[in-house]
Amino acid sequence: MTANDNWYIEHFEPTGSAIGFRITGKLDEVQSPFQKIEIYDSTDWGKLMVIDGAMMLTTKDNFFYHEMISHPVLFTHPNPKRVVIIGGGDCGTLREVLKHPGVEKATQCDIDEQVTRMSEKYFPELCERNGDPRAELLFDDGVAYMANCEPGSVDVVIVDSTDPVGPAEGLFNKAFFESCFRALKDDGLLVQQSESPLALLELIKDMRAEMGKAGFRSFKTLPFPQPCYPTGWWSVTLASKRDGFGFGFRQADAAAKPFETLYYTAHLHAGLEVAPPFVARALGE
Amino acid sequence: MTANDNWYIEHFEPTGSAIGFRITGKLDEVQSPFQKIEIYDSTDWGKLMVIDGAMMLTTKDNFFYHEMISHPVLFTHPNPKRVVIIGGGDCGTLREVLKHPGVEKATQCDIDEQVTRMSEKYFPELCERNGDPRAELLFDDGVAYMANCEPGSVDVVIVDSTDPVGPAEGLFNKAFFESCFRALKDDGLLVQQSESPLALLELIKDMRAEMGKAGFRSFKTLPFPQPCYPTGWWSVTLASKRDGFGFGFRQADAAAKPFETLYYTAHLHAGLEVAPPFVARALGE
Repeated sequence: MTANDNWYIEHFEPTGSAIGFRITGKLDEVQSPFQKIEIYDSTDWGKLMVIDGAMMLTTKDNFFYHEMISHPVLFTHPNPKRVVIIGGGDCGTLREVLKHPGVEKATQCDIDEQVTRMSEKYFPELCERNGDPRAELLFDDGVAYMANCEPGSVDVVIVDSTDPVGPAEGLFNKAFFESCFRALKDDGLLVQQSESPLALLELIKDMRAEMGKAGFRSFKTLPFPQPCYPTGWWSVTLASKRDGFGFGFRQADAAAKPFETLYYTAHLHAGLEVAPPFVARALGE
Repeated sequence: MTANDNWYIEHFEPTGSAIGFRITGKLDEVQSPFQKIEIYDSTDWGKLMVIDGAMMLTTKDNFFYHEMISHPVLFTHPNPKRVVIIGGGDCGTLREVLKHPGVEKATQCDIDEQVTRMSEKYFPELCERNGDPRAELLFDDGVAYMANCEPGSVDVVIVDSTDPVGPAEGLFNKAFFESCFRALKDDGLLVQQSESPLALLELIKDMRAEMGKAGFRSFKTLPFPQPCYPTGWWSVTLASKRDGFGFGFRQADAAAKPFETLYYTAHLHAGLEVAPPFVARALGE
């Protein structure tokens, strides 16, 4: 480290590990009614968005997360037409979802409009589908939105939230998952970001337990690299209403997908059908 | 971060990113003729080994690397009996290699005996196969060892080295790869740790180019999570003497392997047969 270098380091208490990036300066900062949003520029990672001191995304590496929270669940559902994204204010998940031509409507409901405004300004590539006629952007309470959804009206719910503290705390409990369960059709699927599968397996177990109390019967956790999150390895957890659902996916459709990805492939998805042994053991699979 | 916390942070210039761990203290330190080896204890990651300021391994996460540098190449070779490990002084790779019952002899040649002595003391689980009658531990120059190997005598060469600076610099060039090429049988395979596939793709291209100058004809880079290395995502690169070698592996043998792993599975390996699109594009595949 040279004397002129400037590093943004996030010390993450729950994993006892830290992640950081060499930055060139702070570009912007806003205190919304819900949280503090900061934008930094970096030497190697493009722009960084930090919310309440937690790294949310970088220009360089956000594609891992946005692809993996979108494409596996959409290729697992037989025919997803109606998608709801809770959180996801940076709009990167919405962009991936709308790459699927079969999706007829995708509603993104984030409580904090400022996240989207900052993303439009500093991560415009993530917002390039915001004008799609199938997109609906709401700035409202995701818990209330799901509670008020018409029962059996949604194919896929994507919970693209911050960590389970602060504004997102209400997105990790039985009451919220009950709303998701009710809103989903019988073959509907829920997917939620589920933190580090190396260091935070207890959190994944707790989340699955809460989903189970709400009626979900089958679960699948998919790991993927995410350099800007603690441990560099992250996960999403899928949930189905059906007993013994195997989470097999439309492999031929995925292999012939009519859009580009940087990380996701049908091959990769197939390789995730069996969990790493230490993850399977910890989750009792 | 509370005032009482103590963090070991590694700022890695080439990727502009940093990785760190919450430590409880330094347990040991030795300056060998080649490098400085430090051992720390941590709150969540067990013990850490740091060489010349670079994080080498932690108790908690070293299994990713040791499994992925060993099992994919050994299940890709049709019948590996004679294995040479260059570097690998912590003995974790040797342990994985010797899990394969078909391996008749595995020679580990690390220039620095102190790495092995420190590993025996602080990572004894990695050294549990050192007494296997098939194991040979040498403390010598790996470049010279490969140069003096009997031509066509080796099935698999594993280059388990530090970064391409300092003592390991000579393990990343044409002259060394020519020795490996000569020592390997016609169906022999070389595998080498090849740094971050997210941030250091140029290094992987350069390494493949040097291997190519030495006569290797086909290459395959496999990514895997490695939280304690820069970007948290790492890779190994396999090389074959054969034109158009596809790196298909003995999937049935891998699925029926007579030993435990924490991360590697035949399913995972199959999922890696197609590279992530952005990696494939950068490597011209």
